[in-house]
Amino acid sequence: MSQSVAALLKLREVILSGSLPPGERLSENGVAERLGASRTPVRAALARLAEEGLLEPIPSGGFMVKAFTEREIRDAIEVRGTLEGLAARFAAERGASPEGLAHLRDILEGIDAVLVRDPAAGIDFTEYVTLNEHFHQLLLELAESPVLARKVGQAVALPFASPSGFVMAQGALPEARVILTVAQEQHRSVVEAISLREGARAEAIMREHARLAHRNLALALRQGKLHLVQGGALIQRRLPA
Amino acid sequence: MSQSVAALLKLREVILSGSLPPGERLSENGVAERLGASRTPVRAALARLAEEGLLEPIPSGGFMVKAFTEREIRDAIEVRGTLEGLAARFAAERGASPEGLAHLRDILEGIDAVLVRDPAAGIDFTEYVTLNEHFHQLLLELAESPVLARKVGQAVALPFASPSGFVMAQGALPEARVILTVAQEQHRSVVEAISLREGARAEAIMREHARLAHRNLALALRQGKLHLVQGGALIQRRLPA
Amino acid sequence: MSQSVAALLKLREVILSGSLPPGERLSENGVAERLGASRTPVRAALARLAEEGLLEPIPSGGFMVKAFTEREIRDAIEVRGTLEGLAARFAAERGASPEGLAHLRDILEGIDAVLVRDPAAGIDFTEYVTLNEHFHQLLLELAESPVLARKVGQAVALPFASPSGFVMAQGALPEARVILTVAQEQHRSVVEAISLREGARAEAIMREHARLAHRNLALALRQGKLHLVQGGALIQRRLPA
Amino acid sequence: MSQSVAALLKLREVILSGSLPPGERLSENGVAERLGASRTPVRAALARLAEEGLLEPIPSGGFMVKAFTEREIRDAIEVRGTLEGLAARFAAERGASPEGLAHLRDILEGIDAVLVRDPAAGIDFTEYVTLNEHFHQLLLELAESPVLARKVGQAVALPFASPSGFVMAQGALPEARVILTVAQEQHRSVVEAISLREGARAEAIMREHARLAHRNLALALRQGKLHLVQGGALIQRRLPA
Repeated sequence: MSQSVAALLKLREVILSGSLPPGERLSENGVAERLGASRTPVRAALARLAEEGLLEPIPSGGFMVKAFTEREIRDAIEVRGTLEGLAARFAAERGASPEGLAHLRDILEGIDAVLVRDPAAGIDFTEYVTLNEHFHQLLLELAESPVLARKVGQAVALPFASPSGFVMAQGALPEARVILTVAQEQHRSVVEAISLREGARAEAIMREHARLAHRNLALALRQGKLHLVQGGALIQRRLPA
Repeated sequence: MSQSVAALLKLREVILSGSLPPGERLSENGVAERLGASRTPVRAALARLAEEGLLEPIPSGGFMVKAFTEREIRDAIEVRGTLEGLAARFAAERGASPEGLAHLRDILEGIDAVLVRDPAAGIDFTEYVTLNEHFHQLLLELAESPVLARKVGQAVALPFASPSGFVMAQGALPEARVILTVAQEQHRSVVEAISLREGARAEAIMREHARLAHRNLALALRQGKLHLVQGGALIQRRLPA
Repeated sequence: MSQSVAALLKLREVILSGSLPPGERLSENGVAERLGASRTPVRAALARLAEEGLLEPIPSGGFMVKAFTEREIRDAIEVRGTLEGLAARFAAERGASPEGLAHLRDILEGIDAVLVRDPAAGIDFTEYVTLNEHFHQLLLELAESPVLARKVGQAVALPFASPSGFVMAQGALPEARVILTVAQEQHRSVVEAISLREGARAEAIMREHARLAHRNLALALRQGKLHLVQGGALIQRRLPA
Repeated sequence: MSQSVAALLKLREVILSGSLPPGERLSENGVAERLGASRTPVRAALARLAEEGLLEPIPSGGFMVKAFTEREIRDAIEVRGTLEGLAARFAAERGASPEGLAHLRDILEGIDAVLVRDPAAGIDFTEYVTLNEHFHQLLLELAESPVLARKVGQAVALPFASPSGFVMAQGALPEARVILTVAQEQHRSVVEAISLREGARAEAIMREHARLAHRNLALALRQGKLHLVQGGALIQRRLPA
């Protein structure tokens, strides 16, 4: 791993963990010192994180850790859902291969197995997240569009916009089982729509699927579970009036 | 033609021509006398026109000629566009035959020929309307859905909701050529979308295509050309404030 | 109730119950005798049921009880979902009143109560159907479009296309609870979308909501439960190859 | 302007102009020499252009000038149209201010003026492009979504995906006037849809609007006018069979 990549990964983690609070100004020197890295890779990492949206450029020079409002996060989720919707539509219109569809159905069975296990034992969220990420990744591959894949990749760089962004927070909530059941139904319906070449339907389902995250966000905000969300420390709670 | 069908056609024409003004109460006896028909086929015709929406049942019994507000006509056009949109989507998703697509392209060429003729000579609107109705009819056939075909048939029973409902009024307007050019572009795009199996796109285009009629309606209202529209006598002009 | 209405209701019931099998030819005289009615109201009833789609006109005259293929039923459900989707979009775009939204939320709570009761006791499907029909009816009213309301009314005249068409068949199935949970989530999401004036979302949800019936239809077909569906006797089972 | 920005702009221009052909491998040293810049800003520029999609990373290290297939360009246009569609929907749903709408209508009048001028004199494409870019920019502002604005910005970084990407090529074509007339109709319709808060319609129009570029691309490819398109040198012509 190059020095640049190492610096980028470390800096991103520091920001998402909340160690650098929203609004904090970052200088090349300060970050270089904190990470024990030299200035050139730090400069590149700062530029990249500004590109991703985690940092904001300051007019006077330098960067500031971004604070995200609830509305910005909803918008980021909507953008991700819109792009994943486009991917599902492409997959349906272009005609997914039988192998690709079989692979998606295998993942569905895996998620079914996670959900129907002994309720007393609870849901294995780590396994769920792994299967869920795999499902979303495979769907993107079926779209056969490197241009779109790049855009979805940029859209999920903000961790709270990613398909599994709020699942761990959800884990602590009593509504978790209902939400995961609904999510799995949407997975199942989008696979059906793709196999029937119903692109409009596939697109609409993926958009609505992303919006489950809105609800999880609202629950996490209400119940003070933001620390369970990656990047949750950057989310601005509204001040009491 | 049976007596019932004859009575229905005559009564519908009388109403659409404006000879029976909106709000007029119709009794079986009165209509039978007017049409020179017996009461049984008249009763069936009244029931059928109420079903189509041209007559309104009166609580005390009997029927009244319906007056349509601008909003009701816009809604009728939107319903027709929505159903034609569904037909275009079905055609795209189910895969139209090469023959069907070739037939649609022939009609497109015919309309092109109508539009590019000597501008000084003007547009032959009768020929345009014939080709346009044929285009819409063929699109519906490509959907391969008798259930939907029946619904579209019911939706265009109101003449101002039909695909050619306002073309004759448009004929008298200077904007006519631009509107027909745009309409033809939409025809061309929907054929392309169907042949590429892009159902969401095909659906959206047909919806927008129907909305050209909104604009024609507004122009016809503004310029006092409603007498050129079949059924225009039933449209309620808003009173000056 | 007039003789005509009485004859219509009785004949519709006889057909939906399966007492007159698909393909059966109906003559005015035969039906009049069977119902103990005179010929004029019977003629009107036959015409009306042909309009609704339960009867097919025979080229040589008279009518035949319609047989419905699985594809025709899917299309009828899609048409209904498309029109209900339009209603939800109108409600969102035109701005539903706070009272209307509060009323919808009351129904949601009622359905929640039906679903969370003691699982051992089972679900009260009759209560569910009453609340569900009320929800769909109210949504239609919020669209404020008499033209559209008429079209939805025509679309649900085929009983297997109606929002509750397959619920009773579902009642006998183990998947029932999951399907009703997903349906209720869709109810909840459409109310949210309307209150946020998100018309595209509201429309897409209602379309997908209707498609739950596809699944119920497939389950009912597979498990031989068609007799639990109103009009199920008219559905053509595919012959074994 | 910092050294980094200067290096980025220069390198981007060199690539889009076609001076570095698709497939060309770029080393930091080689580029630094060519631009007369030092290695640090060159490294940042290379990373950024890879991010934008103009360069591809080579597994063995370094970058290669990307060649774009027709399909990739169509996908890039579709992504841009999808994101602009989302912006138009947000503007409609969130309620654009009267001032914002008035501003959009002013631009429409400006474009009308460009289009109706003396046909013999031809269309002033430079003025058209300026007004068109302004229209698209303002629409984005009405969406009130910095998150989305960033994504659209990334999507139009590929010049052939931008709203005016093919207008100059179009300028040389006889079809230009029809295409611009249709484009202007779409501009007008999206403004109407936003002002009526019809989000689904606004979204669909902007998607279709973007697809006009597909047609221009096909025309430019067919007529060998790619040199008139910024970045046209990167587009892979299909080889004759």
